[in-house]
Amino acid sequence: MENKNSNIIVLAQLDPIPGNIEYNKNKAIECIKKANQIKASLVIFPELFLIGYPLGDILTRYPFIIEQTKKALEEIKNITTDTAVLIGFAEKNKEKIGKPFYNSTAFIQNKEIKKIIRKSLLANYAEHNDYRYFEPAKVNKEERIFTLNGIKYGVAICEDSWNDFDFFEKNLYSIDPIKEIAPHVDIIVCPSSSCTRAKKEQLKHNMMKHISKKYNVKYIYVNQAGANDELVYDGYSRMYNENGELCAMARGFEEDFFILDLNSSENKINPLPKGLELTLNSQKEFSLDHTPDLERTYKAIILSIKEYFKKNNFKRAVLGLSGGLDSTICAVLLADALGEKNVLGISMPSKLTSSDSKNDARELAKNLGINFMEIPIKDLHETISNKFKNIFDEAQISFDNRYTQSFTQDNIQARSRAMILWGIANEFASTITIATSDKSELYMGYATINGDMSGGFAPISDVVKTKLFALARWMNENRPQKNAIPVSIINKPPQAELALDPKTGKTLLAEDALMPYEFLDEVIWRIENFNQSIDNMMKSKFLYEKNNTLDEKTKLEWLNKFFKRLNTALYKWYIAPIGPVIDGRSISKIEFRQPITSDMNYSK
Amino acid sequence: MENKNSNIIVLAQLDPIPGNIEYNKNKAIECIKKANQIKASLVIFPELFLIGYPLGDILTRYPFIIEQTKKALEEIKNITTDTAVLIGFAEKNKEKIGKPFYNSTAFIQNKEIKKIIRKSLLANYAEHNDYRYFEPAKVNKEERIFTLNGIKYGVAICEDSWNDFDFFEKNLYSIDPIKEIAPHVDIIVCPSSSCTRAKKEQLKHNMMKHISKKYNVKYIYVNQAGANDELVYDGYSRMYNENGELCAMARGFEEDFFILDLNSSENKINPLPKGLELTLNSQKEFSLDHTPDLERTYKAIILSIKEYFKKNNFKRAVLGLSGGLDSTICAVLLADALGEKNVLGISMPSKLTSSDSKNDARELAKNLGINFMEIPIKDLHETISNKFKNIFDEAQISFDNRYTQSFTQDNIQARSRAMILWGIANEFASTITIATSDKSELYMGYATINGDMSGGFAPISDVVKTKLFALARWMNENRPQKNAIPVSIINKPPQAELALDPKTGKTLLAEDALMPYEFLDEVIWRIENFNQSIDNMMKSKFLYEKNNTLDEKTKLEWLNKFFKRLNTALYKWYIAPIGPVIDGRSISKIEFRQPITSDMNYSK
Repeated sequence: MENKNSNIIVLAQLDPIPGNIEYNKNKAIECIKKANQIKASLVIFPELFLIGYPLGDILTRYPFIIEQTKKALEEIKNITTDTAVLIGFAEKNKEKIGKPFYNSTAFIQNKEIKKIIRKSLLANYAEHNDYRYFEPAKVNKEERIFTLNGIKYGVAICEDSWNDFDFFEKNLYSIDPIKEIAPHVDIIVCPSSSCTRAKKEQLKHNMMKHISKKYNVKYIYVNQAGANDELVYDGYSRMYNENGELCAMARGFEEDFFILDLNSSENKINPLPKGLELTLNSQKEFSLDHTPDLERTYKAIILSIKEYFKKNNFKRAVLGLSGGLDSTICAVLLADALGEKNVLGISMPSKLTSSDSKNDARELAKNLGINFMEIPIKDLHETISNKFKNIFDEAQISFDNRYTQSFTQDNIQARSRAMILWGIANEFASTITIATSDKSELYMGYATINGDMSGGFAPISDVVKTKLFALARWMNENRPQKNAIPVSIINKPPQAELALDPKTGKTLLAEDALMPYEFLDEVIWRIENFNQSIDNMMKSKFLYEKNNTLDEKTKLEWLNKFFKRLNTALYKWYIAPIGPVIDGRSISKIEFRQPITSDMNYSK
Repeated sequence: MENKNSNIIVLAQLDPIPGNIEYNKNKAIECIKKANQIKASLVIFPELFLIGYPLGDILTRYPFIIEQTKKALEEIKNITTDTAVLIGFAEKNKEKIGKPFYNSTAFIQNKEIKKIIRKSLLANYAEHNDYRYFEPAKVNKEERIFTLNGIKYGVAICEDSWNDFDFFEKNLYSIDPIKEIAPHVDIIVCPSSSCTRAKKEQLKHNMMKHISKKYNVKYIYVNQAGANDELVYDGYSRMYNENGELCAMARGFEEDFFILDLNSSENKINPLPKGLELTLNSQKEFSLDHTPDLERTYKAIILSIKEYFKKNNFKRAVLGLSGGLDSTICAVLLADALGEKNVLGISMPSKLTSSDSKNDARELAKNLGINFMEIPIKDLHETISNKFKNIFDEAQISFDNRYTQSFTQDNIQARSRAMILWGIANEFASTITIATSDKSELYMGYATINGDMSGGFAPISDVVKTKLFALARWMNENRPQKNAIPVSIINKPPQAELALDPKTGKTLLAEDALMPYEFLDEVIWRIENFNQSIDNMMKSKFLYEKNNTLDEKTKLEWLNKFFKRLNTALYKWYIAPIGPVIDGRSISKIEFRQPITSDMNYSK
């Protein structure tokens, strides 16, 4: 009954909406009909496609979605032909014992659900919380294997494939489903929902290569392409042959109806982001040369903005343009993601804003073609400051311990600006404000609550400052429009222009308030990649130390300052707006939580 | 070598700080020394006491804490005598396979760690994420059992005890450690970290009673008492005898060094919060009579405020007093938790604020003895409004689709107030602002970002409006100072006083903007207790329908409105400040996550 002689497999690299069964089902049906028409042998969807991913807790809070899923599966079943379908869904666990659901994939052909394959290894780390609602299934070899046109396929759902005992130094699970099924099949199929992160492509490529070679099988990987909340799915569905050679690759960072011919040696191999392929075998080392990861970073943020806006019915963004690096990069990314006419940049100078900053902001907006306004906030700042004088004097009657030096004036400026941005977002339809905080500054809590930290979306919240400098240069070279970012913006040292440095009488530089970004970013990198304590870091040579003289005492001071600031920044992280995960690890709420009341000794 | 003839057991119902090994160790040592002095047979600490609970991801991000733990255990070991110690800690898993840590309890006596008991059942639902970092241990009967003075003890760590196949209708795990050990021991010991929630005491009591009776054993439960982040630990450590009778109970909502005499029939039984014991056998039913849960609610919030402030080095709170219910309740709770002199209430009338509201706010502050200021915001509102007129006219050149009716004016008022509160918090040491949003309004997104929704702590964010009315009355009757809350505050219908109702020309009532609170709160209750869809709810009779006429069309309209508002409120939940979990389920970030980009069909 199979599509005789068809060796065509469709990789349905699509973009689901979490919880929207109707939308996802319609998308699947459209794709299956196309696959039927070309008489494909098999069409493969990403993991959990019918319900979407990530799920959060929608299954446990709204379990009635299971009924919607059943109906959708029925509809899908009824349009299947010889062309077989593998589609992921959430299934109810009917047993008295165990978690309430399974992470399942249905194998459907000719109007019949022929098999249901259930996931055994449940990822429960980083962004994954599968064990919160899914029961791990026993590995049932028979259940996972099917034959089409004489070719034997075995199914491993995402994490099921990530536990090879030779490949990994440490394994999370005692069983390896691949080991059970690979010796008995020609092709391993791995439907996945795997988000992009720094260095993850390297791991993924090497692991899949290893498995296909080790078991002498073809390995087909099908991924989502799109973004939901913090997670960006980069697509790049693919096949490796029995020698571990990559022989087909779908597009990156966009949906694809990828047609794979098992008999052809000339399947399309779409390229990875530039630079990334160079790092497939490189070691982990901190570097200021972020080049190998810039195109990926750019593409991931652009897709994240596009999807967040589209799926939440937003169209336009309004942001403050300070003439500094962070807001500049956000403006470029927003213009590229939403179209320049959907972006409004506002320069809001205070009495501390230099004319250079104002000019840079205006020039940037002009170069990008985005909407631009200049709204001085001197009057607002003065009105509020004057009002505050009396308020604070009166409050002093109630409260002692008034600070002799406070950040109140800095914060008034930041909050006045946010008030204007949110006002515009409230007054105009489909418009949201943008939080421009970067990862280095969020780690240090160097942002004002209800001020620059607030916004409906935070595009660069997982990108450190030194990488942002590199990204600015990269965008100037690689966007169709060259040098949109004025060089003076890239060359000036970061500063908030909210306060004067008492020593110099000039506006305070961020590196003086914090520490050199080159050093700061390496501390973050060492925490996120090596989980190092202060003691470990004192013993390690920082890149900064190779390029500068740094005595032990200052180094220790900086490290202590870093962790002290981190600890008091935790409550800011709790209320920081959503933004895409870009790095290998992040402080995003979807994958990291440190109790605000925690009080750690970070020394050793 | 045991303390011969001693039948004294100490329940060390203490309050750890997450991650602060030094602090927790010192606390443990002090307690062990006291137990040594009275020649107790055994002293039992709560689950994971040495590292604290909840943990967030501190183990995986800062694994060097394991070394600190080892040293602390050494110190503890070296002060032990005949008096045995059971103390919980995080242990490294040294195997090549599995999660990186164990949730363990050390059995120590006479300067020797005699046993290490590892937890087998790992809670991974609601506020629990144990499976994120802990490996489930095989149930080793020998490992879990020890003898003191001829009495045999078996250890089950918290969740290890929560899988009885007779007691629960549905079980999460296929093994039951209690079944393995209970037949071989005289006493089950259950070190726990179990937070308070509505109806949880009922479940806990019935389950422990069931186990002790079923296996004819004594059952000793030792809990934390304190609060960390969202979770409040209510203590109430206790013992049941072989007949399932409660025969000893430590204090609630405070630390206790509870001395239990196994030979005595007259151990102290501290009372549960008033009303709670009446509900031990009651069914789940929605009711406006919140009486049975008010003392627990009051005590839990008070403890939560105290601990959050103390552990984060805050001392004082500043909040807006609108003369409405939410800010009133927050003010009373803060005064009771922090002392009235550490609270500053500010009335910030706009042109829409009635003189009644102003008077009510002033009278409340006077009654409570808290600090009070009145700061009219008319000038600020006018300045900003005037500035916005020009801004919006100019922005219209860039953006079309300006709303004909917007919430911009409402929001300016709310944000001006927040600006003043945050200004004071920034200017005075150890001071934070309070977000007064309640659970009903957070569900509906009925709060202004950077306005009333913002704050350093949100005391009533998990309490619905109808319960707040009941709590106000309860506090008026049960606080030492009677009737501190002016009756006019309790009697007036809730309203934000931010906008006029075009129909009446009076300020808009919240129930007109939303729906009757009695109905709204039951929708929340039905989602959180029964996971109901709109269809289910249409088929169910609401309490509101018994007391009022409500046609099907209006009911459906309200339900659709509810879920539509909920879906657009998700991004507000993402940035809502921290507050205590009080209900059986909450929308707090520690236990619930729904993707902002999700787009659900809540109908069926």
